[in-house]
Amino acid sequence: MNRISFIIIVCLPCVTVSSAQSSNDSLLLRSIYNEALGNGEAYSNLRHLTKDIGHRLSGSESAANAMKWGQSVMDAYGADRTWVMPVLVPSWTRGDVARSTAHIGHADIPLHVTALGGSVGTPDDQAIRGKIVMVKDVNALDTLSSSVIEGRIVLFNRPMDPVLINTGAAYGGAVDQRGNGASAAAKAGAIGALVRSMTHALDTLPHTGALRYKDAIERIPAAAISTVDASMLSHELKMHPDLEVSLQMNCEAFDDVEQGNVIGEWTGTVFPNEIITIGGHLDSWDIGEGAHDDGAGVVHTLETLRILKAIGYKPKRTLRFVLFINEENGNRGGKEYARQAGIENEQSALVHLAAMESDAGGFVPRGFRIDASDSATAIVRSWEDLFAPYNVHLFRRGGAGVDISPLKALTPRPTMLGLSPDGQRYFDFHHSSQDVFENVHKRELELGAATFAAALVMMDQHLPSPREDR
Amino acid sequence: MNRISFIIIVCLPCVTVSSAQSSNDSLLLRSIYNEALGNGEAYSNLRHLTKDIGHRLSGSESAANAMKWGQSVMDAYGADRTWVMPVLVPSWTRGDVARSTAHIGHADIPLHVTALGGSVGTPDDQAIRGKIVMVKDVNALDTLSSSVIEGRIVLFNRPMDPVLINTGAAYGGAVDQRGNGASAAAKAGAIGALVRSMTHALDTLPHTGALRYKDAIERIPAAAISTVDASMLSHELKMHPDLEVSLQMNCEAFDDVEQGNVIGEWTGTVFPNEIITIGGHLDSWDIGEGAHDDGAGVVHTLETLRILKAIGYKPKRTLRFVLFINEENGNRGGKEYARQAGIENEQSALVHLAAMESDAGGFVPRGFRIDASDSATAIVRSWEDLFAPYNVHLFRRGGAGVDISPLKALTPRPTMLGLSPDGQRYFDFHHSSQDVFENVHKRELELGAATFAAALVMMDQHLPSPREDR
Repeated sequence: MNRISFIIIVCLPCVTVSSAQSSNDSLLLRSIYNEALGNGEAYSNLRHLTKDIGHRLSGSESAANAMKWGQSVMDAYGADRTWVMPVLVPSWTRGDVARSTAHIGHADIPLHVTALGGSVGTPDDQAIRGKIVMVKDVNALDTLSSSVIEGRIVLFNRPMDPVLINTGAAYGGAVDQRGNGASAAAKAGAIGALVRSMTHALDTLPHTGALRYKDAIERIPAAAISTVDASMLSHELKMHPDLEVSLQMNCEAFDDVEQGNVIGEWTGTVFPNEIITIGGHLDSWDIGEGAHDDGAGVVHTLETLRILKAIGYKPKRTLRFVLFINEENGNRGGKEYARQAGIENEQSALVHLAAMESDAGGFVPRGFRIDASDSATAIVRSWEDLFAPYNVHLFRRGGAGVDISPLKALTPRPTMLGLSPDGQRYFDFHHSSQDVFENVHKRELELGAATFAAALVMMDQHLPSPREDR
Repeated sequence: MNRISFIIIVCLPCVTVSSAQSSNDSLLLRSIYNEALGNGEAYSNLRHLTKDIGHRLSGSESAANAMKWGQSVMDAYGADRTWVMPVLVPSWTRGDVARSTAHIGHADIPLHVTALGGSVGTPDDQAIRGKIVMVKDVNALDTLSSSVIEGRIVLFNRPMDPVLINTGAAYGGAVDQRGNGASAAAKAGAIGALVRSMTHALDTLPHTGALRYKDAIERIPAAAISTVDASMLSHELKMHPDLEVSLQMNCEAFDDVEQGNVIGEWTGTVFPNEIITIGGHLDSWDIGEGAHDDGAGVVHTLETLRILKAIGYKPKRTLRFVLFINEENGNRGGKEYARQAGIENEQSALVHLAAMESDAGGFVPRGFRIDASDSATAIVRSWEDLFAPYNVHLFRRGGAGVDISPLKALTPRPTMLGLSPDGQRYFDFHHSSQDVFENVHKRELELGAATFAAALVMMDQHLPSPREDR
């Protein structure tokens, strides 16, 4: 490497910050990024997780394998102790049949569909068939008379808004169809539901994701349909309003299974009773390989431990590296972790000071979503200049992540950060067969790990202890 | 689309800026991004340029086809007038043979190579063969005695520095081997040169690019070799220091050809004598499709014209949309454009006020490189808050682009901006067979076009006229 440019790069941040502390922070951050980019293991860990272990739906054997592997990596990277926090998780299988066909005149056109997570199969695993009622919105069903919906299949076909810069906001603006569509359709008398896949891309990939059946409403089968097929049906319906669609799936639900959160702990040297939790989720959907969602968060978490050990860091607080279970279809791992954290807060001298999550993909890091008090938010925002040399600029308030969100109920409330990678490509892959290792970029993944580690170090060094803060 | 979230998104920037002018700017930017993301044609234009026209080496028939197409699009998008500024460009062909083999003991191992742009072929198109001298640096040749180099093939094998965040800086720190290696090796008596491909990736793709032969030094053949092969040779040389490599290429140079810069002009309504130039380069290397380099810049330029017409914008200054020729191997298009701009400045009432270039790929836009006076730089930086809602944060001083760089010599010196997309993936594809349409992302390309158009509008609205500035 070019020694002179290295020195220039290292020293540039120093001259832009004022205090000796900031200068030390600046050097610390540079050593973290150097380690991640120069000796990184995040990419090879992700290859193992996605290619050798594979997708990891809660309750599956591969999820159990991933738990063992995650714990062994934490042990190898030098965690003081590692354990599994048991969690009962749902067990559901997609089955091997997901067939759907549009019957238009004499033509039978196969559609690209996959079951939404948690869907029931079609009755007796046989195909259902009905006319289509297309709506843009769950509420639109209320405006239709039940005779229009009775016995039919509802197609929820509202696209993600393309003009929103934040793709997560576009997802948030469309995903109610997936979560609530099946029960809303069933309540109105429908026999099945198809939901336009949550992606900006116009392609033939169905994207799965959890649905939520409402109690006391009949559970009807529901599938994601690709954006190309949804758009095609919308077009054909104008000419053939009586076209019919058939749907056949053999999904199945089983009894809950005991799996758990994998935890590695590194005891703090100054305030060992203060806990900072960082993590991602080990489970994934059962199509694709869960590479971005959330293999990236898993290896960001493991790599953070490795980097901090490699550079000789000594944590002030006790750091907990957590691979959560069951984010995708229940968040029981996150809830159980928060429940036990509450007990620790109350029954021991421990305090859960902060938490951070990576669950938005392995893309180039752009910044953080901050979910914290005004004073803690101001502290986090004071780090902006330190992160700017790494092109990390976003310090916006927002939800920090599903797994850690139940920790918000603790007293005192932990400072929570969510890693924000660039989101433009995320929904191309999210919950689809294309969420695979090949679609993760080595340097982008490494930069994410470094940014995650850097933020952990800054929290460890600079968040005030709860007694000071109150 | 969700109307309420749209209104919230549109109005958020308004409350964070102080003046009515900034509020207007904010609305203008939002309308530009909406048009680019909602009705964009950049992606379909790029598909045509890369798939139907193909790669576009200066002097080639496809470069001529691209010129015709570019002019026709500018006409269709409503430029007031379009023309071609003739430029004599070099004509060089890679040939159909680029074979290289490592002879290690009894094994003959084929290597992945391609000629560097402008290289001579091997003598009589026959293979040369010699032992390897591996160096990390052009200067390292000075420390070796000529007997070590005489009759051998020099392997320049210094990797791009992985720890630099700015991949362009890592490229800049390694590319001297490609530009100067052949003549330095020839001067020391070598018969050929192999240069490690300019990429962070460890793969089997050779990446071409221009070399510069020095006058009065023998021209020896030089090829790019993939990073995997370069690393393999480095490893094998430790065990087999006498290993030989053969190289055969049939590149050829021809007489210069007349092609040219394609220019579209839109006359200003307030200061029609003040010119703002924006552009990218139409030529590309002859492997891959020139999709990121610089098909993206071409369609950013065309899309900027389309967007501003679509939203009903009325430019204050005269806008020139320029598709430059011959950036890759001579920059004769950029030099000729600046020469004629100098004549216009002197012999007519015209003033070249500003210029902007997109030649760093079609990735998600991060900001701008600013090459301008202190006062103009301060003006550009005052726009940071307006661009922040679009995740455009970088406002750093730096070179604005090769094509427009000769304009720096004009008096008064134009304000120059270069679009800075995210660079982490750029050198995976740059100058290789993988710089193809499939490796450009639709939304990222559209965001780049919007950011390019937004910066043009801000310059048009807010740069002071030269008389005020002097």
